[in-house]
Amino acid sequence: MKLYELVGVDKTQGFSPYVWRIKMALAHKGLEAEMVPLGFTDIKDTLDFADSKTVPVLVDGDNIIKDSWDIACYLEAAYPDSPSIFGGSVAKAQARLLNHQITLPLLVPFFKILVADIYDLLNDEDKDYFRRTREPRLGCTIEETIEARPKLLASVKQNLWPYNKCLEEQHFFGGDEPAFSDYIMYGIFQWARGTSNIKILQEDQPLYKWRTKMDNLYDGYGATLVSR
Amino acid sequence: MKLYELVGVDKTQGFSPYVWRIKMALAHKGLEAEMVPLGFTDIKDTLDFADSKTVPVLVDGDNIIKDSWDIACYLEAAYPDSPSIFGGSVAKAQARLLNHQITLPLLVPFFKILVADIYDLLNDEDKDYFRRTREPRLGCTIEETIEARPKLLASVKQNLWPYNKCLEEQHFFGGDEPAFSDYIMYGIFQWARGTSNIKILQEDQPLYKWRTKMDNLYDGYGATLVSR
Repeated sequence: MKLYELVGVDKTQGFSPYVWRIKMALAHKGLEAEMVPLGFTDIKDTLDFADSKTVPVLVDGDNIIKDSWDIACYLEAAYPDSPSIFGGSVAKAQARLLNHQITLPLLVPFFKILVADIYDLLNDEDKDYFRRTREPRLGCTIEETIEARPKLLASVKQNLWPYNKCLEEQHFFGGDEPAFSDYIMYGIFQWARGTSNIKILQEDQPLYKWRTKMDNLYDGYGATLVSR
Repeated sequence: MKLYELVGVDKTQGFSPYVWRIKMALAHKGLEAEMVPLGFTDIKDTLDFADSKTVPVLVDGDNIIKDSWDIACYLEAAYPDSPSIFGGSVAKAQARLLNHQITLPLLVPFFKILVADIYDLLNDEDKDYFRRTREPRLGCTIEETIEARPKLLASVKQNLWPYNKCLEEQHFFGGDEPAFSDYIMYGIFQWARGTSNIKILQEDQPLYKWRTKMDNLYDGYGATLVSR
């Protein structure tokens, strides 16, 4: 298997939240993939074969799958004898809901918080491309986002309330063991860890303790991403 | 079994979102309970036996259970041979997350939208009690909430985006069949239906179509609550 992922100048440090979902899902199933690191402009030029403009893309023999949700579904169906990543059809349906629930309250403000630090990680060609494509979406320059950070961080911390609350009551979002719902959430924090030194979680929070548990899964796989 | 629920002057029309979760869960499991209708001041005086100040409270033989989440867990454990309401341990854990996720973006603004209409449904004694206890929480008079409705409705409609999006892709939040995650969501819309004629969903929305499917479950049980 080959998994295409997003990197900056350091090609060993993939930071895409969507790719991390799949890296954890592969580890959950005891599967290994060769990682193919791509910068932003590489992605634009390389993934035509998969009809995709984004990572992750998974190639498994003759199968080419794009989109993290579809890849997770593919892995679950193609490798039914390894541990289930979803934990049943109802849990799968609810993970799909979670997939959408985190977009506006978490992914959008996280992107605005991290964008200036992501920019700093890129090579010059990717920097140009990233600025040209992201600034119109942001409605401001990359540098101007830094000023908005305190307000965005306050909003993110409020939006993390239900996740902290839930983890007061159970070990993982999937219950006693981690499931794809945990990998969806973990991807967000890996994105932050791999791109920025901004502190989003406090040590006494349930989410902080959960993240440490997630870091320790699969021989500390998640912690191979170096904290900025 | 006896299930204690919240009503206004009309004792046949329970409108608590938390009780509706349990009414649907009972129907899902093919169980019947005698409904015990209580007004707000009745609840204060009646539920000491359950050490509870809120509905639902379920009495099943010697077992007295309060809190909708705990009642759902009780039913699932006590009646393992009837259809599962959660759909497995991972789905159960994720439903618990949903339970918290809807609080701030949906339950809180829904309450402020509905509160003036809820007040109108109550008998005089309950009206006094409701005003005295709710106005300090609202930070304004019940009547003053009416002015804030358009803004709250706009916010609720935005916060419903992930739920509409998810239902473009699957029949129920639980997938092909309804699960407790659907009953959590349905309770919110039953609360609105039973208390107010404010239109929250548009007919072309996936949530509207889903609600109709929910209304039709279990011989149209949910639709026995009359629309205001």
